[in-house]
Amino acid sequence: MKHHDLNQFIDHGTLYLSAPEAAELVRRKGLANCLSAIAANIDADFQRWADFDKTARVANHSQHGVIELMPVSDDHRYAFKYVNGHPSNTRVGMSTVMAFGVYADVDTGAPMLLSELTLTTALRTAAMSALAAKNLARPNSRVMALIGNGAQSEFQALAFKHLVGITEVRLFDVDPQATAKLVANLQGHDLTVTVCASTAEAVRGADIVTTVTADKTLATILTPDMIEPGMHLNAVGGDCPGKTELHGDILDTANVFVEYEPQSRVEGEIQHKPADFKVTELWQVLRGEQPGRRSEQEVTVFDSVGFALEDFSALRFMLTTATELGLGERIELIPQLDDPKNLFGMLARSESQTCAVANGETIAI
Amino acid sequence: MKHHDLNQFIDHGTLYLSAPEAAELVRRKGLANCLSAIAANIDADFQRWADFDKTARVANHSQHGVIELMPVSDDHRYAFKYVNGHPSNTRVGMSTVMAFGVYADVDTGAPMLLSELTLTTALRTAAMSALAAKNLARPNSRVMALIGNGAQSEFQALAFKHLVGITEVRLFDVDPQATAKLVANLQGHDLTVTVCASTAEAVRGADIVTTVTADKTLATILTPDMIEPGMHLNAVGGDCPGKTELHGDILDTANVFVEYEPQSRVEGEIQHKPADFKVTELWQVLRGEQPGRRSEQEVTVFDSVGFALEDFSALRFMLTTATELGLGERIELIPQLDDPKNLFGMLARSESQTCAVANGETIAI
Repeated sequence: MKHHDLNQFIDHGTLYLSAPEAAELVRRKGLANCLSAIAANIDADFQRWADFDKTARVANHSQHGVIELMPVSDDHRYAFKYVNGHPSNTRVGMSTVMAFGVYADVDTGAPMLLSELTLTTALRTAAMSALAAKNLARPNSRVMALIGNGAQSEFQALAFKHLVGITEVRLFDVDPQATAKLVANLQGHDLTVTVCASTAEAVRGADIVTTVTADKTLATILTPDMIEPGMHLNAVGGDCPGKTELHGDILDTANVFVEYEPQSRVEGEIQHKPADFKVTELWQVLRGEQPGRRSEQEVTVFDSVGFALEDFSALRFMLTTATELGLGERIELIPQLDDPKNLFGMLARSESQTCAVANGETIAI
Repeated sequence: MKHHDLNQFIDHGTLYLSAPEAAELVRRKGLANCLSAIAANIDADFQRWADFDKTARVANHSQHGVIELMPVSDDHRYAFKYVNGHPSNTRVGMSTVMAFGVYADVDTGAPMLLSELTLTTALRTAAMSALAAKNLARPNSRVMALIGNGAQSEFQALAFKHLVGITEVRLFDVDPQATAKLVANLQGHDLTVTVCASTAEAVRGADIVTTVTADKTLATILTPDMIEPGMHLNAVGGDCPGKTELHGDILDTANVFVEYEPQSRVEGEIQHKPADFKVTELWQVLRGEQPGRRSEQEVTVFDSVGFALEDFSALRFMLTTATELGLGERIELIPQLDDPKNLFGMLARSESQTCAVANGETIAI
């Protein structure tokens, strides 16, 4: 974005993209195009990893869940996401994961975009998973097991179809209604969908296994007996201290990849492994500085927890696309002041404003 | 707030309070009442210090400034503030400090209030300063020097008038236009206003000295020769690494109070002092667990950097007051889903919606 484009954010306020408008954006652009564009942004941003001021997210844990802030910046742009994780929310009719975030100008601190990120997080997580799998799974992967059929599952299935070439998904969830919803939503998307009676049944013969379960417990969704040579495991659901999905022995014999090592050591599947347990940061693979998969037989694991840079990439996509489609509205989140040193002047009801109201009333009468 | 009140945030979206609406709130409630109520909230929250999950703010520094996130929570509520500090912004017509924040429910992670915090930060900073001075300055303090006459200065002057009993302010700023603006804004507020030619002149004979300058440099606004026995120094402007206002020797002979020690060690006037330099956290004084001022002759320093808990207190005031006055609007920052596990369902354009539009068009024709 060039400087003259930035001025509109200074002069006309922050662009606000609500959840319904983000959905409208995805409908108009097409889900596959959105996933593809976000994956391309993530790829580009991960390849310039060293440009970013990175930090592990800041988490406030409580009895029922966690609220996190995820900031990241380069020399030009800053982004952060607010995101919660409350597995018990679905019982009161609310989403487990809710999010919003801001994309801002580093030179002035001005917030350029305030956007919903609940839908967008599902998109970027799926795009990230697919990008990792493109680089780590066997190139001829066609069958994916999808364990956990909740809010994120359709996005995972469709990202792997469009970006990785998956043609069949094998589903399992402890909640049969969640699976039924996923089956219904995947109709008409040209995917072979098989409902399975257990995780083991779903995983058997799969090229890729995606786990995207929500319980904030040390669950063991996958055990070593289920794992076949050459599988790629996309472990999405284990993403905070005390929340994992894979049996520890699986990690010991696999080649493990993470987003941002300092955060993954605390939050990822590797949280119970020693500090020197070998992992590779994915950006190194994307840049060709480290190998990804080394053989057809190797088991690869993408131990995904979700990193701020993925939201940075997704927010850039949302801003560019909302601007292109004319979506969103300008809001005065930050006061527009004639004299920036006269913040106090905001409190004076101006004569001209009073006049305008009086005129308006006269006309109305 | 009781549980049935919380439901409205779940069922009807997040309350959004824009900058103009926050100004309207202050106009309707009255500035003195707002300052007083926010100071009371801060006092109450600081007195239950141990209830809060506290963390030093997360800062992304860049060439021209800093962007910070400031989270804090107790067992029921969570708050964070986004705030920048860019001293050069005024040269391009923008504010040095811009802010917004969210007040959320800990049990579900739902954001209850999204509010502007640029104006609100000025209010809460002034309320915090006045609250500290009430406990640290000599009780008969009447004259305050006000060094730095920018965006925050009116709020400081009026908070000290209303909450501390200051009757005269003595002003100095390197920018005479800033001082002229402050003089104009203080007219009619029943304060004796004296414009001074230097910091030394403004400080001479003052009971309280407030420094609220903006330069992100190791400035030395106050030097030891200016300091008189019994003075209270309210050092507001030095608030990040490399940004201080007081000569180090002043601190050595004064009784120094801070908000949250781990953050102040990095950001405050004490950043150049050894790690064992003695400071007292203000909450201990408010609770009566530590003495404040110990004699008429002692110099006290409130080394203020701004702590997340102050924004938590201010956001609670804004939410309560906006609700009481019917200000703000509900926004769909988080999607409202019939089935929280069916996020994907957002992307389907519902038949009923299409119908409604078609009907609307028929009527319009």
